[in-house]
Amino acid sequence: MKKVPTSAGIALAVLTYPLAQAADTDMLLEKLEQLERRVEQFEQRTERSEQTDVTTKEIAVKSTDPKFSFHGYARSGFLTDDTRHNINGVDPYMTPAGRLGGPIGRLGVEPDKYLELIFDSKLNHKNGAYSKYRVMIADGVNTNNDWTADDSNLNVRQIFTELGNLPSFANSTMFKDSVLWAGKRFDRNNFDIHFYDSDIVFLAGTGAGIYDIKPTKEWTSHLTLYTRNYGTIEPTNDEIQSYILTTNNSFGPWQFMLSGMWAADNNERTAGAAKDGIHMLFGGSMSNFYGFGEGSSKAGILFGTGLGAQPKVLGGEGDLIDDAQSVRLYTYGVHPLSDTWRIAPALMAQQSKDYYRNGDDYSWLSLNLRLEQAITQNFQIAYEMTYQYQDFDTGQAAGAVAPGIKTSAHGDFYKFTLSPQFTLDTRGGFFQRPSLRAYVSYLTWDDNLNNFNYGEALDKPGTFSGTGWDETDHWLYGVQMEIWF
Amino acid sequence: MKKVPTSAGIALAVLTYPLAQAADTDMLLEKLEQLERRVEQFEQRTERSEQTDVTTKEIAVKSTDPKFSFHGYARSGFLTDDTRHNINGVDPYMTPAGRLGGPIGRLGVEPDKYLELIFDSKLNHKNGAYSKYRVMIADGVNTNNDWTADDSNLNVRQIFTELGNLPSFANSTMFKDSVLWAGKRFDRNNFDIHFYDSDIVFLAGTGAGIYDIKPTKEWTSHLTLYTRNYGTIEPTNDEIQSYILTTNNSFGPWQFMLSGMWAADNNERTAGAAKDGIHMLFGGSMSNFYGFGEGSSKAGILFGTGLGAQPKVLGGEGDLIDDAQSVRLYTYGVHPLSDTWRIAPALMAQQSKDYYRNGDDYSWLSLNLRLEQAITQNFQIAYEMTYQYQDFDTGQAAGAVAPGIKTSAHGDFYKFTLSPQFTLDTRGGFFQRPSLRAYVSYLTWDDNLNNFNYGEALDKPGTFSGTGWDETDHWLYGVQMEIWF
Amino acid sequence: MKKVPTSAGIALAVLTYPLAQAADTDMLLEKLEQLERRVEQFEQRTERSEQTDVTTKEIAVKSTDPKFSFHGYARSGFLTDDTRHNINGVDPYMTPAGRLGGPIGRLGVEPDKYLELIFDSKLNHKNGAYSKYRVMIADGVNTNNDWTADDSNLNVRQIFTELGNLPSFANSTMFKDSVLWAGKRFDRNNFDIHFYDSDIVFLAGTGAGIYDIKPTKEWTSHLTLYTRNYGTIEPTNDEIQSYILTTNNSFGPWQFMLSGMWAADNNERTAGAAKDGIHMLFGGSMSNFYGFGEGSSKAGILFGTGLGAQPKVLGGEGDLIDDAQSVRLYTYGVHPLSDTWRIAPALMAQQSKDYYRNGDDYSWLSLNLRLEQAITQNFQIAYEMTYQYQDFDTGQAAGAVAPGIKTSAHGDFYKFTLSPQFTLDTRGGFFQRPSLRAYVSYLTWDDNLNNFNYGEALDKPGTFSGTGWDETDHWLYGVQMEIWF
Repeated sequence: MKKVPTSAGIALAVLTYPLAQAADTDMLLEKLEQLERRVEQFEQRTERSEQTDVTTKEIAVKSTDPKFSFHGYARSGFLTDDTRHNINGVDPYMTPAGRLGGPIGRLGVEPDKYLELIFDSKLNHKNGAYSKYRVMIADGVNTNNDWTADDSNLNVRQIFTELGNLPSFANSTMFKDSVLWAGKRFDRNNFDIHFYDSDIVFLAGTGAGIYDIKPTKEWTSHLTLYTRNYGTIEPTNDEIQSYILTTNNSFGPWQFMLSGMWAADNNERTAGAAKDGIHMLFGGSMSNFYGFGEGSSKAGILFGTGLGAQPKVLGGEGDLIDDAQSVRLYTYGVHPLSDTWRIAPALMAQQSKDYYRNGDDYSWLSLNLRLEQAITQNFQIAYEMTYQYQDFDTGQAAGAVAPGIKTSAHGDFYKFTLSPQFTLDTRGGFFQRPSLRAYVSYLTWDDNLNNFNYGEALDKPGTFSGTGWDETDHWLYGVQMEIWF
Repeated sequence: MKKVPTSAGIALAVLTYPLAQAADTDMLLEKLEQLERRVEQFEQRTERSEQTDVTTKEIAVKSTDPKFSFHGYARSGFLTDDTRHNINGVDPYMTPAGRLGGPIGRLGVEPDKYLELIFDSKLNHKNGAYSKYRVMIADGVNTNNDWTADDSNLNVRQIFTELGNLPSFANSTMFKDSVLWAGKRFDRNNFDIHFYDSDIVFLAGTGAGIYDIKPTKEWTSHLTLYTRNYGTIEPTNDEIQSYILTTNNSFGPWQFMLSGMWAADNNERTAGAAKDGIHMLFGGSMSNFYGFGEGSSKAGILFGTGLGAQPKVLGGEGDLIDDAQSVRLYTYGVHPLSDTWRIAPALMAQQSKDYYRNGDDYSWLSLNLRLEQAITQNFQIAYEMTYQYQDFDTGQAAGAVAPGIKTSAHGDFYKFTLSPQFTLDTRGGFFQRPSLRAYVSYLTWDDNLNNFNYGEALDKPGTFSGTGWDETDHWLYGVQMEIWF
Repeated sequence: MKKVPTSAGIALAVLTYPLAQAADTDMLLEKLEQLERRVEQFEQRTERSEQTDVTTKEIAVKSTDPKFSFHGYARSGFLTDDTRHNINGVDPYMTPAGRLGGPIGRLGVEPDKYLELIFDSKLNHKNGAYSKYRVMIADGVNTNNDWTADDSNLNVRQIFTELGNLPSFANSTMFKDSVLWAGKRFDRNNFDIHFYDSDIVFLAGTGAGIYDIKPTKEWTSHLTLYTRNYGTIEPTNDEIQSYILTTNNSFGPWQFMLSGMWAADNNERTAGAAKDGIHMLFGGSMSNFYGFGEGSSKAGILFGTGLGAQPKVLGGEGDLIDDAQSVRLYTYGVHPLSDTWRIAPALMAQQSKDYYRNGDDYSWLSLNLRLEQAITQNFQIAYEMTYQYQDFDTGQAAGAVAPGIKTSAHGDFYKFTLSPQFTLDTRGGFFQRPSLRAYVSYLTWDDNLNNFNYGEALDKPGTFSGTGWDETDHWLYGVQMEIWF
């Protein structure tokens, strides 16, 4: 109460009160009316809110624990060559370098229907800990037909569970953010150059590990043990198992990864095959385009010996010999040139020696340039150019495999692709998906590369890799959808 | 009202009123202020709640954006013949006409466990555009056992993405409602006669298209390009690819669909096979039962030549010859006869000439009648009768395939099925699902149809299609669940 | 403000004001009280709404109908023997008793990657009835590699729909809670001993049934008909189908289950195979540990003849002979010993006679003890000990299969496993999942058991079951994730 009538003021008040009172009453009424309006607004607002709730309930899948989520990757389209036939063997690994992991730019050379379906189930425990269970089912076929049971490659690529935020680790500065996992998985810290459809590191298999150990404020460390299988020792039926132990460390923008791998008795499976190996990566990431402006960029070097000489799929190739060694360089960046243009150069290069046989020597270098030009909010044109140099020597005498089949070859490969594309927002950058695209590609190469063979039993003599092509220039046409989410 | 001023109290009230009034007013003000505080608390609370809601919505939208949804179709049950054995080869396409797409009524002749799992992920962009990604995984097996790895046909039938509501099209009256898509899919505008388990048009494969072009207010048009594969040219390993370009148009209740198809060098794969074709559909839909009351009905005619002579699966049969031609008629309707009875007649008929060989001539007509009688809210009885006429001539001399095997045959087939069914609501009409059913079917046919063969290498001589039956009447018993959602 | 006191009205107002004022005040009070009531209603409403929100979030997955939910089971890890090779043939059924369903404790002997993905879709009809559609996709492989297309066993194990709360049954005390179903499924009422990875009853196949019939208040009854397939009669291609009709009843803690099974002409598929059988279970459940304190326990006996002599998978083994008979005992319990220790003993034992051949006689007994010791809130150690006794006689003369291969054998098997484990909450009991574990197991057995064979064509002579081991003690090492939800 604001106005307290004092004894002294009462007489005056008696006379003036009605007026004052009227004013007060007016004020009161006005306040009441204001209140009424506010309450009415509340009523409407609450009703709206309740209706929205119903809508929310109807639309959103607000779930009890465990909480489901769905993620995935897919590409799906067709590809046609100049004779209007279907293309088998065309993909980013179609050149002879492909067997050594040497990719060309992926745009316009993917005829397959490949997908990864990811089903996650997350459980939040009342003590704060959570678990995340993940399953990935994948498939890849080439046929354009809709019933693919005869070609199906449906398989389960990942089944693992992570545990995080464990109260038992809450008091350890080193482990309190750590995540434990076990099962079959792609390592969480793998990374790729999208334009090549190539991981830089693809660590995967069945095992266990711990992520996000923090020995210091700057240093984050991950420790994992993966197993993979190489095949069977005949006639004992023993399955060779390889073990890949990895310490993966990041210090701010720098990454250092060291892996050791062992596969007992692998030389009994294939004479001369390595039983162990070492693999290293030194890399760096920049949140700008090589220091020259907006964008991002990465670069690094990989080195391996023995079973570690497969630079990408760690421990993934059981037929490497003891002396095998590889070095691989990689770099790529993305950069907006203007409001409508953006550019993404990428380079990978590798030299491998004493890889499959003592005395062999393989070198390749792939240079790729992707440009995108936004035309409207939903339509853009992508351009991709690849140059690949290859120099291969199996260390065998010419003609050792079969007459006319080369055991050494070198030469250049070029690819040019033009691709009009529809997307939700062309200003979204290089990684905006889904993308609906058409494309035309022109491929050409030195005919010196034809008829090269890695020195084994021949499946397709006289061809450029697996495509069945004995000519050295080709046009490809196709459409494709690509998405990840 | 708490204090009622009596006549007697008025005089006093005149004097004391101001004070009392002041006190009352104080009280009022206090109450008002209390109210205000409460209302303010409400306001804050509601705002917090709404912010939380917004957060919830944002989180929900974030976690559900992309938004997941699950759809599917499945049927699952067993079927037993009069010897209590499992039935292979029994399905709606079990008669000789089945190879030409001539179905019988499906009720009571489906022993398989078939399912389609559909996983959708929808993304709404802030500019209003959306994308819908769809994957369909399907499987069909006959075994009743629960571990079916040896029989599994699990495969991916669809992987595609649609883009809609694109801002770039917003200003075009013709394209503003258009939907773009690319990938592998069943065409959105396919339609079927459920009682036959037969699509009228089954356009599917890998390609791209645009739906819902509106050249005029009445005219909606869809343009699609699909590819399919027919197999391999030996010994070059070239895969034959066919291209099906379709313009599908609706003008109010009328539909006109025209497709051209091409498959380069298909005659090198199989001598005499067509390299192209034309396919047409004229159809109509009525939102009543042929003008005779409640319900709906459809009718139309399909015509095709060369590769287009396969009237249902457009471009789906690569072995048709150049001169092949087919005409197919279809009609069906659904109609409530009373509160408890409903009726659904359906007819399909086809004539094909010079189809697999010059001089062959195939005619069939299928007439099906489904009746349903609601008994209680959840229990109904379905009755189905099929009559099928077949007249086949492969154009080859009798005995050309093997002694006793016919190259021409004609005759009648009859099926009667009685099926008690449980459902959520028997008043839901013919398409209410799920349905749990038992059934008994009686099948009989002219024995003239036995031992007919299309003139190729024999797999099951002396049988009625693939069933292994050499007698001409059979009883079948079974249970089944069917659902779509 | 409605009434503005004019100068002219002031005099009158002075006299009449108090009355008017009283009326106004009454009005004000009334208005205020109305407001208060409205505000109170708001308060209650908001609170209700907030409670509903919480309830909604916590309990209901309020979604658009049909409502999706995701469930599953998975285990995924690797196992290594003392030569660091991958292990094939090691699992809970690795001993000779395994073929007769005699398991050892599962902890530390599972190298496989097995999963069950369950996709449910529930539909609530406005009349109160609901349907639940369920699909289960499963896979199991041994390879540790991530691309498993060549090994994939992906298959659909369940496709069924249940109908419940049907208005048509609402007035029947016996059927009002009943659930109808049809399709392919695992029976809802199957139950297992987790520590053995063994169901006590595994009733599964394609059929139909009704659950939760309540003839009396105490008696709940389930009636089901399942079909399974046994294979083909050569050369007629007829598929043998078996029918399993089961009445499964519970009376409070007691269960009685009676099944009859028939497979017409099964003796034409395999000479001497039974064409029918009987199977019975008497069991009981206690909500305490055998009456000796906290926990739970189960025990029972199974008996079967002919096709029913397979005690676990009802009707699941088509090669049993007419005279076959089996009796199986089972019991297990779980019990907290203290805040940090818990114990779970389990026993299964079986005797089978005239099983595969007249005169054969098989006995085994498995005793398993699992102990768990919580160390921290997220870390525990599990200990498992198995003793298995086996006494087998195929009834054939020694050497009947091949020289050195035994047709009778008996002896003891022992397994000890130590397993450190991480979980969300170690106080959650034996069935808290997910669990991330490492383990080491020691296995040993009488060498008398080596080289025993069931008297058929040999695949791995001179081995302990399928493992390829001819020595009688082994160490196994591994890691594993296990989850269900």
